[in-house]
Amino acid sequence: MKYGITETVKTIDTKIKINDIINHIVEKKAKAIKYFLEGEEFKQTVIFGAYLCGGYIAHSLTDYSEEVILVDIQHHLKEFVFNKNVKFMEMNQLKLKMRTGEVNPDLVIDITGIGGLSPDFLQKFNPKCLIVEDPKGCYDEYIYKVDNTMERATVGERIGILKTYRKSKVSKTSGTMTLTIDTVMDSAREVLDLDGVLYVIPNLRYYEGIIFHEKDIHKFLDEVHMPALTISALEDVEDEANRIMENNLDRVKSFIEKR
Amino acid sequence: MKYGITETVKTIDTKIKINDIINHIVEKKAKAIKYFLEGEEFKQTVIFGAYLCGGYIAHSLTDYSEEVILVDIQHHLKEFVFNKNVKFMEMNQLKLKMRTGEVNPDLVIDITGIGGLSPDFLQKFNPKCLIVEDPKGCYDEYIYKVDNTMERATVGERIGILKTYRKSKVSKTSGTMTLTIDTVMDSAREVLDLDGVLYVIPNLRYYEGIIFHEKDIHKFLDEVHMPALTISALEDVEDEANRIMENNLDRVKSFIEKR
Amino acid sequence: MKYGITETVKTIDTKIKINDIINHIVEKKAKAIKYFLEGEEFKQTVIFGAYLCGGYIAHSLTDYSEEVILVDIQHHLKEFVFNKNVKFMEMNQLKLKMRTGEVNPDLVIDITGIGGLSPDFLQKFNPKCLIVEDPKGCYDEYIYKVDNTMERATVGERIGILKTYRKSKVSKTSGTMTLTIDTVMDSAREVLDLDGVLYVIPNLRYYEGIIFHEKDIHKFLDEVHMPALTISALEDVEDEANRIMENNLDRVKSFIEKR
Amino acid sequence: MKYGITETVKTIDTKIKINDIINHIVEKKAKAIKYFLEGEEFKQTVIFGAYLCGGYIAHSLTDYSEEVILVDIQHHLKEFVFNKNVKFMEMNQLKLKMRTGEVNPDLVIDITGIGGLSPDFLQKFNPKCLIVEDPKGCYDEYIYKVDNTMERATVGERIGILKTYRKSKVSKTSGTMTLTIDTVMDSAREVLDLDGVLYVIPNLRYYEGIIFHEKDIHKFLDEVHMPALTISALEDVEDEANRIMENNLDRVKSFIEKR
Ligand SMILES: Nc1ncnc2c1ncn2[C@@H]1O[C@H](CSCC[C@H](N)C(=O)O)[C@@H](O)[C@H]1O
Ligand SMILES: Nc1ncnc2c1ncn2[C@@H]1O[C@H](CSCC[C@H](N)C(=O)O)[C@@H](O)[C@H]1O
Ligand SMILES: Nc1ncnc2c1ncn2[C@@H]1O[C@H](CSCC[C@H](N)C(=O)O)[C@@H](O)[C@H]1O
Ligand SMILES: Nc1ncnc2c1ncn2[C@@H]1O[C@H](CSCC[C@H](N)C(=O)O)[C@@H](O)[C@H]1O
Repeated sequence: MKYGITETVKTIDTKIKINDIINHIVEKKAKAIKYFLEGEEFKQTVIFGAYLCGGYIAHSLTDYSEEVILVDIQHHLKEFVFNKNVKFMEMNQLKLKMRTGEVNPDLVIDITGIGGLSPDFLQKFNPKCLIVEDPKGCYDEYIYKVDNTMERATVGERIGILKTYRKSKVSKTSGTMTLTIDTVMDSAREVLDLDGVLYVIPNLRYYEGIIFHEKDIHKFLDEVHMPALTISALEDVEDEANRIMENNLDRVKSFIEKR
Repeated sequence: MKYGITETVKTIDTKIKINDIINHIVEKKAKAIKYFLEGEEFKQTVIFGAYLCGGYIAHSLTDYSEEVILVDIQHHLKEFVFNKNVKFMEMNQLKLKMRTGEVNPDLVIDITGIGGLSPDFLQKFNPKCLIVEDPKGCYDEYIYKVDNTMERATVGERIGILKTYRKSKVSKTSGTMTLTIDTVMDSAREVLDLDGVLYVIPNLRYYEGIIFHEKDIHKFLDEVHMPALTISALEDVEDEANRIMENNLDRVKSFIEKR
Repeated sequence: MKYGITETVKTIDTKIKINDIINHIVEKKAKAIKYFLEGEEFKQTVIFGAYLCGGYIAHSLTDYSEEVILVDIQHHLKEFVFNKNVKFMEMNQLKLKMRTGEVNPDLVIDITGIGGLSPDFLQKFNPKCLIVEDPKGCYDEYIYKVDNTMERATVGERIGILKTYRKSKVSKTSGTMTLTIDTVMDSAREVLDLDGVLYVIPNLRYYEGIIFHEKDIHKFLDEVHMPALTISALEDVEDEANRIMENNLDRVKSFIEKR
Repeated sequence: MKYGITETVKTIDTKIKINDIINHIVEKKAKAIKYFLEGEEFKQTVIFGAYLCGGYIAHSLTDYSEEVILVDIQHHLKEFVFNKNVKFMEMNQLKLKMRTGEVNPDLVIDITGIGGLSPDFLQKFNPKCLIVEDPKGCYDEYIYKVDNTMERATVGERIGILKTYRKSKVSKTSGTMTLTIDTVMDSAREVLDLDGVLYVIPNLRYYEGIIFHEKDIHKFLDEVHMPALTISALEDVEDEANRIMENNLDRVKSFIEKR
């Protein structure tokens, strides 16, 4: 708690950072995947899509798979890999190794979402288990039209659809970024409701610009290291604000539906 | 319009910048004041409170007052003065000139709001006209308790209370910053509702930290020079987003109530 | 709790009835008035406006005033009087008694709101204390324009403006009916948010039609004797629903501002 | 438009009635089904669930099926049948005719939703086409847990899942009643936002009590024959209110997803 313009007004930063929200959602997705896999072990896992949860999901599977490969069309996203047992590959490299037979995964995870992998490409695999992340959230006509999750989820002995929603709240997609932003925005509204709060600022940036246009992962990590909300208030509402944020984190539910 | 992660998704910045919203509100406040003054002319005007609308209100009165003085306890806020006919004074300097009789305004405007000027101090004046900005917005128990607008508005032949609200929307105060943030936040929610929108980012910062803690007006002016919203969407919703923002700007109404 | 269509679904009525909400608001208004009067005693009190809180406010003042007269242009509203020490009068009757000097109140309370008493009429009084209810809620352009509270509040040694708001929530007026409806509606939205709730029905009617067009006070009393909300849910959410309603009742704040 | 308490205030009823909303949703569901069937013709159609759209869906299929049977466990719901080419059957009667082979449908439609038909029962059929209505709306933990749409949708050469949502809005289920209530409630909120509106009353009742507990279909038809909203306002907002309601009707989208 600092003072605002004068000592009458206080400035409060939430303890929870943007990064904490991202991690919370990423962990829930990883947990949903592991729950679906039921401790089964794999020889070779290929995960498509490094951003925003690919790195962590890859890491979380290293104990269950002899080899874990994370693939993205964007080379610089290899920086999302933080576990040395995870191998990063670009798309071209992967395609080559598929032809040579070096890559022939028994677990395939596609989290590329809207505009990502094509159903045709996925049909080149024949895994024991395929998991496709469904990018759809609450109904949106265009997003539902563009979505092709069901067309992608056709190969593999066991097929799971990864779904992530926020309870009773509108989010247009299941994307980690979408859910993070909406969690921050809805929390901001609720905090504004507290007695004595003047205004609430969500410390959000256009992170995808930083990652995909500026290609600056370090700046991204810096920017998400900010308190989710900065609050101007007459009283110290930090505890209530943190509680509101936690309630909103609890709204996020991730699970896999068997196809 | 740029592309997002892939070409399927577009990134749209609103034409309206944070700064445009601030200016819009500031102009409405200045207009309400001029409407109340009905073209009357003054010898000496003293305006208390440079941030966030003091500079512009001072400027807008230079045609109606031989002398316009803008006063603030924060010296560095003199940078908000952009019209050379407006004199900036610090509080101590003003108090000195009040004692010598050099400062004896016939128009006094107090926009210092919550925690600002004391009723006692204002009683040292005897103007033809006194205008006090009421900082209260929609009912908040603590803000209503701390507010002393009516105690401040006791001297002067004609007394006006400057009020600023957003139609049918909750804002806790009439502060230019509060109204700007809430306009951005409510617009963000409405834009999210449009078909094909994935998420909406309000480009807000904790500006008061930049101005009052870092004391860096240039950084502030830089930061408000950002599109109000950055939108991730499947279709180009720029026109609809701008229309939503304009509707939300129209909600702001500023007027003076005779005491 | 009853069953819904099948035993899987439950139907829950809130303990709190529409009537309880009305009473809660009416009591807060009466309490604000008594707090302002500070135990002062009066010879003759005239209250204008029987609907919706006039009867109760009149009753609550019988211990502080030798005579309490409730006035309304609508004769059938005398049924709102439930304390035999309160005298009901129609407008014409009152005007007659004003001319003869029989009515010359030292306490006048005007709760007729929008379209009610004219400022001219009120100027015929010379009370020790005048209280005028301000019908305005959150800012609405038309309602603010039509409102003439300040023009009405001009006679009397002590003048108070009765204001009633809901904390951080939009209500367009301070009318007991408006606040009741909005409390029910906002509670309905919050209850819908609870886990397992399918839908929520607010048991509201167009009560003013019953009272002012059908002129059937008994039907009105019947209709408000309904649970505020009927909830369809998979689990028994009665306690949470009642808590939500109580929180929303707590939002209502009534107080008098000295003119 | 009528007057309210005084002539200052108007009372406006929306042209759109509760019944119009129900019909609108029911028609969209029927249209989604017909679109999925692509003009194919059937010998015998069995529809499970008369309330709230069974009667209309049955009617809409009479041109495409030689025989259309509507089944419900509640005998009195046969009153929902208004097309004489639709045969109503109770569950027991149907089971008998299934055993004798008289009932052996090539089209089965299950709109019984939560707590309705069991997967086991549905497996007794072997239709060319099976359609199961998915009762789920925006994510709700309990509703998702209790739902067994996928377990029901297992027989038939072609299997479709009927889904109905409101664009960008929270509805907990796809039930016609849920969507009707939420459409009315969300419209009420939007109408309240219009200039000059004092309050808005949604004319909703606990209809399922009337149908399933009182078993009085005529009272139900009477009760839904009410304007969706009654509005108290300073100006005639009827056109804007109807437009808001129509926009909210447009939000409802019904379609069938191939299993
Ligand atoms: N055809 C393709 N092959 C591999 N990676 C792809 C791809 N198309 C898109 N991608 C990558 O997939 C990611 C899409 S964004 C995915 C977000 C993720 N579902 C979440 O919720 O966090 C980006 O990193 C993008 O570069
Ligand atoms: N006692 C005092 N004398 C002069 N200026 C003061 C003051 N107390 C506070 N201030 C100044 O008044 C401003 C308060 S912020 C005012 C915001 C303004 N009402 C708006 O809506 O934009 C700050 O610039 C602060 O430095
Ligand atoms: N000129 C007048 N004289 C007396 N009563 C009047 C009046 N004009 C309107 N009224 C009465 O005043 C009431 C207006 S409705 C008042 C509602 C009240 N403020 C509340 O919050 O509950 C009605 O009963 C109406 O009949
Ligand atoms: N086992 C069963 N067999 C036949 N009808 C059943 C049933 N269980 C429930 N029903 C009926 O199915 C209906 C459930 S309500 C269905 C609502 C529908 N999905 C809509 O959106 O309008 C009720 O009429 C109920 O009586």
